[in-house]
Amino acid sequence: MRIMRAEQFGLKREVEYGTPEQNESALRIVAEVKAEGDAALLRYTEQHDKVKLDASLLRVTQEEIEAAYDRVDALFLTALREAAVNIRRFHEKQLRNSWTDLQPDGTMLGQIMRPLKRVGVYVPGGKAAYPSSVLMNVIPAQVAGVPEIVMVTPPATGGKEGIDPYILVAAAEAGVKELYRVGGAQAIAALAYGTETIAPVDKICGPGNIYVALAKRAVFGAVDIDSIAGPSEIVVLADEAANPAYIAADLLSQAEHDEMASSILVTPSESLAQAVAEEVERQLSTLPREDIARSSIDHYGAILLVDSIRAGIDVVNQLAPEHLEVLIEEPMRVLGLIENAGAIFLGPYSSEPVGDYFAGPNHIIPTNGTARFSSPVNVDDFMKKSSLIYYSKEALMKNGENIMTLARHEGLEGHARAIQVRLDHENDTR
Amino acid sequence: MRIMRAEQFGLKREVEYGTPEQNESALRIVAEVKAEGDAALLRYTEQHDKVKLDASLLRVTQEEIEAAYDRVDALFLTALREAAVNIRRFHEKQLRNSWTDLQPDGTMLGQIMRPLKRVGVYVPGGKAAYPSSVLMNVIPAQVAGVPEIVMVTPPATGGKEGIDPYILVAAAEAGVKELYRVGGAQAIAALAYGTETIAPVDKICGPGNIYVALAKRAVFGAVDIDSIAGPSEIVVLADEAANPAYIAADLLSQAEHDEMASSILVTPSESLAQAVAEEVERQLSTLPREDIARSSIDHYGAILLVDSIRAGIDVVNQLAPEHLEVLIEEPMRVLGLIENAGAIFLGPYSSEPVGDYFAGPNHIIPTNGTARFSSPVNVDDFMKKSSLIYYSKEALMKNGENIMTLARHEGLEGHARAIQVRLDHENDTR
Repeated sequence: MRIMRAEQFGLKREVEYGTPEQNESALRIVAEVKAEGDAALLRYTEQHDKVKLDASLLRVTQEEIEAAYDRVDALFLTALREAAVNIRRFHEKQLRNSWTDLQPDGTMLGQIMRPLKRVGVYVPGGKAAYPSSVLMNVIPAQVAGVPEIVMVTPPATGGKEGIDPYILVAAAEAGVKELYRVGGAQAIAALAYGTETIAPVDKICGPGNIYVALAKRAVFGAVDIDSIAGPSEIVVLADEAANPAYIAADLLSQAEHDEMASSILVTPSESLAQAVAEEVERQLSTLPREDIARSSIDHYGAILLVDSIRAGIDVVNQLAPEHLEVLIEEPMRVLGLIENAGAIFLGPYSSEPVGDYFAGPNHIIPTNGTARFSSPVNVDDFMKKSSLIYYSKEALMKNGENIMTLARHEGLEGHARAIQVRLDHENDTR
Repeated sequence: MRIMRAEQFGLKREVEYGTPEQNESALRIVAEVKAEGDAALLRYTEQHDKVKLDASLLRVTQEEIEAAYDRVDALFLTALREAAVNIRRFHEKQLRNSWTDLQPDGTMLGQIMRPLKRVGVYVPGGKAAYPSSVLMNVIPAQVAGVPEIVMVTPPATGGKEGIDPYILVAAAEAGVKELYRVGGAQAIAALAYGTETIAPVDKICGPGNIYVALAKRAVFGAVDIDSIAGPSEIVVLADEAANPAYIAADLLSQAEHDEMASSILVTPSESLAQAVAEEVERQLSTLPREDIARSSIDHYGAILLVDSIRAGIDVVNQLAPEHLEVLIEEPMRVLGLIENAGAIFLGPYSSEPVGDYFAGPNHIIPTNGTARFSSPVNVDDFMKKSSLIYYSKEALMKNGENIMTLARHEGLEGHARAIQVRLDHENDTR
């Protein structure tokens, strides 16, 4: 793993957003499903997933979900349930109440918090079908109070027909009651515009392939969408006292995701840098996904030397990583200096997989430097706010002239008159 | 104003998102400013705003801001300051603290709330330069704690050179210390990528013409942007006891904004419907912006008859209006039924302009049915969350096997090993 001064490093990943042909294809599928409903949905399912269905078979039955429980490993189910408890507990703390601000003149202002009514979660098929992501997408929506959470996933998984039982079990554990075996751009269109079988939603979330991403972009505005995730990143900030074997293992856990993943160590210690580089090489050699991890480390990995932990924090804030591990003595002391990081893991036992699977915080976190301005998936993503204004007669009589002054300055006489008509009828009781 | 049964009405406005030529032009300007910095910024300022500047003149000086105070009306300034106090008070109630969840095994989880570091606010020139919008964009950012709020606005306003003094005063009152006389797509590019004179920001907000909107869309990802506002809407839900003159004035205050604006009354009362239709006609005839308001009323306005207030609320929830006025006896009793509305105005004295200018809640509210899933501008829009995970040794020892089970099921052995390496070194103290 290359070691260099931090100043010499420039992380640059060109994230692919699809070719014009892929975009055209996604747009065509979306338009056809919007216009034709189930007919187009079933046509594209046959064409792309090689599964011939009719509309009555789209919805996954309760029996299939129950049967899935017989096919999953008991230890897995135990672990999944404990993770779900932790994820639910963490996200419940994000919930906010509506509030009101009562004023002595009788005016009441406020902010009403409400869940979205219907949310669609996309779960990809094949190797990208992660039960953990099902929990991370569904539980925040459920905690928000979304009454209708619907999941879609392709009818065939990894070349085999049928939905992965682990996905069905994760969905059931997370509380999903409505599942459809459709995937691709056609599933996104069905969620956005509705078909005879699938009612339209207010928001679509969850990862997918490039066609899914392009279809989500196309339907945005008709419905809300989550952000399109880029490749994953970890930055480890460590001092001389940190354990190089821990750091190497954590860097590789990121690198094994994807050849575009980025694993970076920032440290003032040259001896740690050397030790971690050696550990990475040693651990790589026995990793099942060695090829992917090695390519990621070679292209987007680096050990960056800095003059001090303080200087390292500046580097971290510039990178704005998705995941940050702080492996220094008393990690809490630098927390106030970390401006940009999606999730911050403090101390030697907070290995990134702890957060990926189990601790409770969401594992869907802003990538590619967007932690500068965005946040991990959270309950707010599934709620909306409405402002509440109950203005009293007293308040209007007192402030009416000010309001009219502002309206007239902006050339909006009609606005001023809506106030004036009330001042003129001061003695009305209505 | 047409009166019809609610079932017969279908609000449909095709919102324009620019021609391919406009998009190409916006993209070219963005690319040139990104590549060339100030040189391109000044070139496009000369070309589009007909003002020749050099880089040293881009920033608005403190003297100009002070001089602007001498040119604004004293009553306006008083009203603006009172509005600013109210807006600040309301948005301060939206602020949230960071929180932590301490667990008995020593684990600490949490959510850290932080302001964005640098935000750019676009203020259009000409007739669309609204001091009220300056307050509504800047104050939430300021309340969030954003340390650097920078404003850009075209160097010429309404054919005249120089920035509208009312805009400068509103900016100063809202607390903006850094202003540049640039507008159009070139200003958006400068905010997103930075130039020699203007440092790049994390988020861009504020309304603008079609080139500004297209440039914002183009830079999204490099920075965050606010949503692109559509034409404005009001829905009034009223019963027989409501004052038709109030309703007509409120409908017209919306209609005068824009020919695409939509003003709708929903009522079970045929007599109110008739009275409001007559009042609208009467009030229209003396409105300075009669032509705009009449076109809006004719094309996108309607009085919708429903069987009951309850049925009217269903219509409201389908329309998901930007502004909703509830003019019925005891309006509070239906609040729990209103699912979709950006801002809810209750009772006879809560005329929409009260909220547009003065009461405190934000006047930048989701349009075109997007109140189904989005919210008025608020303090959260200028903050980001980071997850915090401090996992204790005890917690890792207890939960390590569960985490490894989940990781291995997903084929991510490197994740499992990052846990295993720690379990293997159980006796380490680091």
